[in-house]
Amino acid sequence: MAVRAAVAGASGYAGGEVLRLLAGHPEVEVGALTGNSNAGQRLGALQPHLTPYADRVLEPTTTQALAGHDVVFLALPHGQSAAVAEELGDGVLVVDCGADFRLTDAADWEKFYGSPHAGTWPYGLPELPGARAALQGAKRVAVPGCYPTAVSLALFPAYGAGLAEPEAVVVAATGTSGAGKSLKPHLLGSEVMGSMSPYGVGGVHRHTPEMSQNLSAAAGERVSVSFTPTLAPMSRGILATCSAKARPGVTGESLRAAYEKAYQDEPFVTLLPEGQWPATASVQGSNSVHLQVAYDEDAGRLIVISAVDNLTKGTAGGAVQSMNLALGLPEGLGLPTVGVAP
Amino acid sequence: MAVRAAVAGASGYAGGEVLRLLAGHPEVEVGALTGNSNAGQRLGALQPHLTPYADRVLEPTTTQALAGHDVVFLALPHGQSAAVAEELGDGVLVVDCGADFRLTDAADWEKFYGSPHAGTWPYGLPELPGARAALQGAKRVAVPGCYPTAVSLALFPAYGAGLAEPEAVVVAATGTSGAGKSLKPHLLGSEVMGSMSPYGVGGVHRHTPEMSQNLSAAAGERVSVSFTPTLAPMSRGILATCSAKARPGVTGESLRAAYEKAYQDEPFVTLLPEGQWPATASVQGSNSVHLQVAYDEDAGRLIVISAVDNLTKGTAGGAVQSMNLALGLPEGLGLPTVGVAP
Amino acid sequence: MAVRAAVAGASGYAGGEVLRLLAGHPEVEVGALTGNSNAGQRLGALQPHLTPYADRVLEPTTTQALAGHDVVFLALPHGQSAAVAEELGDGVLVVDCGADFRLTDAADWEKFYGSPHAGTWPYGLPELPGARAALQGAKRVAVPGCYPTAVSLALFPAYGAGLAEPEAVVVAATGTSGAGKSLKPHLLGSEVMGSMSPYGVGGVHRHTPEMSQNLSAAAGERVSVSFTPTLAPMSRGILATCSAKARPGVTGESLRAAYEKAYQDEPFVTLLPEGQWPATASVQGSNSVHLQVAYDEDAGRLIVISAVDNLTKGTAGGAVQSMNLALGLPEGLGLPTVGVAP
Amino acid sequence: MAVRAAVAGASGYAGGEVLRLLAGHPEVEVGALTGNSNAGQRLGALQPHLTPYADRVLEPTTTQALAGHDVVFLALPHGQSAAVAEELGDGVLVVDCGADFRLTDAADWEKFYGSPHAGTWPYGLPELPGARAALQGAKRVAVPGCYPTAVSLALFPAYGAGLAEPEAVVVAATGTSGAGKSLKPHLLGSEVMGSMSPYGVGGVHRHTPEMSQNLSAAAGERVSVSFTPTLAPMSRGILATCSAKARPGVTGESLRAAYEKAYQDEPFVTLLPEGQWPATASVQGSNSVHLQVAYDEDAGRLIVISAVDNLTKGTAGGAVQSMNLALGLPEGLGLPTVGVAP
Repeated sequence: MAVRAAVAGASGYAGGEVLRLLAGHPEVEVGALTGNSNAGQRLGALQPHLTPYADRVLEPTTTQALAGHDVVFLALPHGQSAAVAEELGDGVLVVDCGADFRLTDAADWEKFYGSPHAGTWPYGLPELPGARAALQGAKRVAVPGCYPTAVSLALFPAYGAGLAEPEAVVVAATGTSGAGKSLKPHLLGSEVMGSMSPYGVGGVHRHTPEMSQNLSAAAGERVSVSFTPTLAPMSRGILATCSAKARPGVTGESLRAAYEKAYQDEPFVTLLPEGQWPATASVQGSNSVHLQVAYDEDAGRLIVISAVDNLTKGTAGGAVQSMNLALGLPEGLGLPTVGVAP
Repeated sequence: MAVRAAVAGASGYAGGEVLRLLAGHPEVEVGALTGNSNAGQRLGALQPHLTPYADRVLEPTTTQALAGHDVVFLALPHGQSAAVAEELGDGVLVVDCGADFRLTDAADWEKFYGSPHAGTWPYGLPELPGARAALQGAKRVAVPGCYPTAVSLALFPAYGAGLAEPEAVVVAATGTSGAGKSLKPHLLGSEVMGSMSPYGVGGVHRHTPEMSQNLSAAAGERVSVSFTPTLAPMSRGILATCSAKARPGVTGESLRAAYEKAYQDEPFVTLLPEGQWPATASVQGSNSVHLQVAYDEDAGRLIVISAVDNLTKGTAGGAVQSMNLALGLPEGLGLPTVGVAP
Repeated sequence: MAVRAAVAGASGYAGGEVLRLLAGHPEVEVGALTGNSNAGQRLGALQPHLTPYADRVLEPTTTQALAGHDVVFLALPHGQSAAVAEELGDGVLVVDCGADFRLTDAADWEKFYGSPHAGTWPYGLPELPGARAALQGAKRVAVPGCYPTAVSLALFPAYGAGLAEPEAVVVAATGTSGAGKSLKPHLLGSEVMGSMSPYGVGGVHRHTPEMSQNLSAAAGERVSVSFTPTLAPMSRGILATCSAKARPGVTGESLRAAYEKAYQDEPFVTLLPEGQWPATASVQGSNSVHLQVAYDEDAGRLIVISAVDNLTKGTAGGAVQSMNLALGLPEGLGLPTVGVAP
Repeated sequence: MAVRAAVAGASGYAGGEVLRLLAGHPEVEVGALTGNSNAGQRLGALQPHLTPYADRVLEPTTTQALAGHDVVFLALPHGQSAAVAEELGDGVLVVDCGADFRLTDAADWEKFYGSPHAGTWPYGLPELPGARAALQGAKRVAVPGCYPTAVSLALFPAYGAGLAEPEAVVVAATGTSGAGKSLKPHLLGSEVMGSMSPYGVGGVHRHTPEMSQNLSAAAGERVSVSFTPTLAPMSRGILATCSAKARPGVTGESLRAAYEKAYQDEPFVTLLPEGQWPATASVQGSNSVHLQVAYDEDAGRLIVISAVDNLTKGTAGGAVQSMNLALGLPEGLGLPTVGVAP
């Protein structure tokens, strides 16, 4: 008997990717699709790639439309999820692709989002210590941010093994879909093609406290993150270059061993063979994470680089993986591990 | 009981895409993977996106390696398929992604390929009149060229309905993966990014007679094709702009009606709603074809534009679709219809 | 003594490119820069590549601001140029990058633009027969559309030499800057990267009558143009694939000879050596046009492919070239012929 | 009287860019063009964008061919420049775009290049303290590496002003032209489009000691550089994200003041207004450097981001700027400061 799923925010990139994955999920039947400014339109006019759902018409995002499903995916601007979830009640699984319930620290939330903290839900990154257990049977899931997914998976093993000083430096390149469908001049094709540019520099990006939260939990002490996001001329993908000062005694071997141990049983995380570095194209459209590590002896730093698809493992794939865990389905059901390359 | 499949030429783009699709096919188990210059290497070093097969090692392409499978996909340079197929014998399904058995006319073959004609196999484009029946239970399949897939589906309904003069003009843009992994200067990223350029102009591209063959069959008379391929700055996708002088009495309505009729029951072909034009990104990584038609009254021409993924529907998707038909499986099994967009 | 130039519409792509060229023009001094919605802003915030003018502030587009210059470049939405030009008076050279004064036929104008015809100015494509003479000393210039530049230069020699039937078929790919800075969803980087798509199909694009006008003039009879524009994943460049049925007796040699003759003395048009095809990257940022011709005997068609930069030779370069002629300066002054490649 | 210039290695990207700039230089006349594997070919077949030089034929790189010029640009693989320079003698200005004479420390050279150190020439980055004076009248110039140009200009003011701890962390994205025209699979368009990937991770990239050398000179103590280069899906441009732990007492204001002071008189370096971040497209094809700085209080780090065109300011522009200084010409002659954008 199929799981019935609704998607709120089906006209955006995150909602569209949830639908793309659900279309290939053997246990899910897609129910209501909602939008706000786009309610009343054919999905095919907004998301022409979702061929089998092209004739579906978007409903307005209301509790009525979303009720009666087993799982509701929320791909809404932050600040809206709490009300929707409350109205839907405890009987339905709510998977929130937004930021509202990711942070445990209310002060962090208020500093970065400027509004009262809504609370904390089980965190949809099963590969983190303790996270998988918390997701099993959960009725609420906070899907991680795309950058925190890439960065936390890149660095938590080093912090968990005590190999790194608590000051991480992260420079990440993202595809433009990470900025959503917003009509801003700097997101025009003419502007982004052939160009790299940074944004949110200097500790102001909202994903910063989320990374710090995850790494601090692994380290058992507060880890600061100097985070610089950059916009790359590609639609999808995050390449996160993460580094930290190595603790005394760290070697290339001990570093690699920590990652082999952390990921030996993880179906979606691949520590590449030595000498092979990740490329975002290799994980495009998939739920896979590719990782590589290096120890720079001269600089005394360990470097870990991860590649994820910001829309798949970084958003919708993480959401479906968490849904599978919450519903007691096989964790990898419906989730491709093969990237669409070249 | 799973179908066991081997892939010859697994290090190239066509072979890699066959593997990507087989990884998601519920009835197929992947057996031998072979290459020639790359034999002995880990697949993960050559095709890092094929995460679940990364540790497989390529064998040399020999009958021994390929024997013992239910289906063998050949993704080899032209001229090699006949010998391999003969050695494998009639008991095994051979799906040839190469050109050797596509053309019915030996003179065409010799003119464009400069070697003796090997023969003709059932043509792996089930949407063409009569093709589906010929594929059911077949033991040999000639997968169409990527351009002929896009162009034949764009124009055969017009010729089948007698709406067009027998002189087609086609300008198509392809992603660079259409040229394979060959190390040629004009295929370097530095050269193709930010640039459009034509090649094979003036009736010399090898896919020309194949298009002409398919359209002539639909028209019941010889259809000439003026074909200009162009290289676009993208990895995947074909956008084929096809036109022909309209026969007297043709209207926008009669044109559209012919396409509605031709594709009403085709699961992989979508005639878009009026006013919506195809984009290659919408079909990326999928087996879908998106089409739109227009009648230009001033010029007296009908224009049909199709978008396909050259590697999926244009090669590996067509191959798997044909395999499904040949083996009596549901035709769409394992074939995504949702594109990976944005 | 320097020529003083003003640019109206300096915040858009066309205006920005005019400024880029003027910055390298040895006889021009840049005066007023105007905009409308962006008046009051630093140019550097809107056009960060115009480094030497970054601190200039945009004025509103008024006659007052534009008065007192030797030449005024208009890069405005169509419909606004007539009034500005009239107010500036006959003493100042007005170079209009917009469409208002390109068409000679009022009915064509009204059909395609839906407003009364403003008139016809000397046409800023000096390479066309008679055009150069009309530009010398002119006080008004209508800069051609970007597509008509590429297509007219590709086909007029064939029509001028009587080699082609009067029904042209053109499929052209353009970089996204051709659509300007308008904030439309289909122009977002996420949508255009990795994708080709057509628009304005079926004889409705506004550049169609302009092409027809130029080719008809060369042919001495009306030439219809079936024109399909497509949007390519690049910022700049037009690749125009143009073909027509060859008249009886045409050969590859006679075709090539017509082009050699037409362009032997043209400094900005290069007929490439046989076998070499144009690429848009080769002319990026330059005023050069690269061309190649072929005769397809089987299809009985001649094919001519041209590459231009839509913003340079296709707009601002043509504008500056025309200004040079109008002011009696050397025609090529300040105009690069070397493309920015790779 | 014109300066006669020869270019050795005219078929590569660096040599081609030198030629592009020389074509626009009012005091230079281009003499011999040489290549090795491509000797005897038309330049137009190899570098079709160099329209005015298309019919030049490449000569073999010999002293004979290069003799008799006022300046010789060397764009050769490392290891070849010393012999050529010696044969040319002291009377001719030799500008080496290669690595041979950049490093002052022989041990660094031997460690990273594995061959004996050839020596040290005046360093072609006039913006570094003392460098301009050393270039005036010089007969030999070592043009900096593209990454060291971007990184040294980003960080030397901070080190010069004593604001940063001597451990820099740099993550830089480069366009693919930085890798030259080498025919390697990972440089194919199909592989690089839509993908970001790192290379040379962990302290092994050859530009690392050059950065360290420049920053150490500014700091007056050894500065280590943790350098991670990444390949971005664009042809040109470097975006360098550089950071270091701030020394006690540093504020956003003191940081900005150091950069304003360092660059107040530099014609090619622009410290952008606060809040505006550099984009590589803005400097494409130009000799400009765009910079921005930030102080991340939580992480205690200063971040400086620079954008350059790797082929222009990063190679050929730096070469021509140095030539101008060496010959006593105005430093900026022939060097565009406006980028080719969008």
